[in-house]
Amino acid sequence: MATRIEEIIRRVTDLVSSQIGGGTPSGSRSVNSPGADSPLAAYIDQTLLKADATRDRVRELCQGATEYRFASVCVNSCWVPYCRELLGESGVSVCTVVGFPLGAMSSAGKAAETAAAVRDGADEIDMVVNVGWLLAGELKLVHEDIAAVVNAADGKLVKVIIETSYLTDEQKVTACVVAKLAGADFVKTSTGFSSSGATPDDVTLMRRTVGEEMGVKASGGIRDAETARAMISAGATRLGVSAGIEIVTGDRGAEAY
Amino acid sequence: MATRIEEIIRRVTDLVSSQIGGGTPSGSRSVNSPGADSPLAAYIDQTLLKADATRDRVRELCQGATEYRFASVCVNSCWVPYCRELLGESGVSVCTVVGFPLGAMSSAGKAAETAAAVRDGADEIDMVVNVGWLLAGELKLVHEDIAAVVNAADGKLVKVIIETSYLTDEQKVTACVVAKLAGADFVKTSTGFSSSGATPDDVTLMRRTVGEEMGVKASGGIRDAETARAMISAGATRLGVSAGIEIVTGDRGAEAY
Repeated sequence: MATRIEEIIRRVTDLVSSQIGGGTPSGSRSVNSPGADSPLAAYIDQTLLKADATRDRVRELCQGATEYRFASVCVNSCWVPYCRELLGESGVSVCTVVGFPLGAMSSAGKAAETAAAVRDGADEIDMVVNVGWLLAGELKLVHEDIAAVVNAADGKLVKVIIETSYLTDEQKVTACVVAKLAGADFVKTSTGFSSSGATPDDVTLMRRTVGEEMGVKASGGIRDAETARAMISAGATRLGVSAGIEIVTGDRGAEAY
Repeated sequence: MATRIEEIIRRVTDLVSSQIGGGTPSGSRSVNSPGADSPLAAYIDQTLLKADATRDRVRELCQGATEYRFASVCVNSCWVPYCRELLGESGVSVCTVVGFPLGAMSSAGKAAETAAAVRDGADEIDMVVNVGWLLAGELKLVHEDIAAVVNAADGKLVKVIIETSYLTDEQKVTACVVAKLAGADFVKTSTGFSSSGATPDDVTLMRRTVGEEMGVKASGGIRDAETARAMISAGATRLGVSAGIEIVTGDRGAEAY
């Protein structure tokens, strides 16, 4: 598998560079990856993205995230001001989603949603790639779309959700290469709203493609500590889950992760 | 049923007015409703909102809409410039969605996505209500959210998707009353991405609530001419469907609608 992946990565990188005018990644800054002896909680974006989430549920989410010391809470952008207010200096970051979950919002719309979220206090932006442009090979547009969000994020962490359920391995690699060239900090597997979520194989493929200087977030369908650990072993440095408390309490007593 | 509905509408209207400071609807302009002898096609927003829609599929959508003289094509906002270019002066409008499908985008994000879509050539904006705020009775926020989009739409038609699948009858009425007070032009049943779509009963309830000066769009699960006609009989003045061509060709020969 390794050789095949390396060959795809090489070929796709050449293709992408020829389409979007080459250039080197503008990101490449250090991404806060938990150390090898970190607890599982340090990997977790505790997530609530349902349309019918209410303020009471968002408050519970923030309370749990503070108690269990998760990396962040991940919420829809209407909740960013409230989470910022609740989390204050707790050390739990506020993560929000942009162009979510379809990824087919205009680039100007994504950039503006990002800028508003940063003004409202977001620390991290999980944007959805434009799947239709990616599938048709309109890579210059895909690159501009991501770069517009990275620019609007004004230094805040940007994760690019490539929505693996729609993509071949070659398209997954392509999405990761374009995200890296556009200056994103992380690639992320899934929205959780499509037909399937994260797999260890996809995390491995994405990790090999982006190298060590970017983060990889696994999300979608991770509901227990065993699956969470499998994703970390495959190369994930962040996990998007809605059952963070169940995952870490099932994990109590273990030292690793 | 009629008395019960009227009673709910009266009670909810009082409640909403007390929460958002009263006021009369700022909209109330005439909404382009097809005449009673119009063909079914004149009611149809031919819709393609899948994440993996490509340019080729969007082109086919526009060709079909022009051929069959649908009211509009309804696409995600990244496709507005392309549809504008293709549809030109065909008489088919360009409709797009905002805060779609979750409705939980920040109000500033929804307003900016709307403004960008109007700059790109959109004629109609289908926004999703903030379901979480609605469910918890945070009606002032729901009103401001809709009003921000109406303002950003700069005179273009605004439809408010209330996502009936999450709502009780009382909440459906509340959503319609708030949408009317915020100056929207239409209320719309569903995104098509939730657990259920339009029903004639919901269309009847929404029509009774908003009166004759607003439009009602039925969407979600309408796949044949019989269902389409049932929605129109219940009070719908627009239909959101992905199978517009099948619906109107199944309808050939009929004069009404």
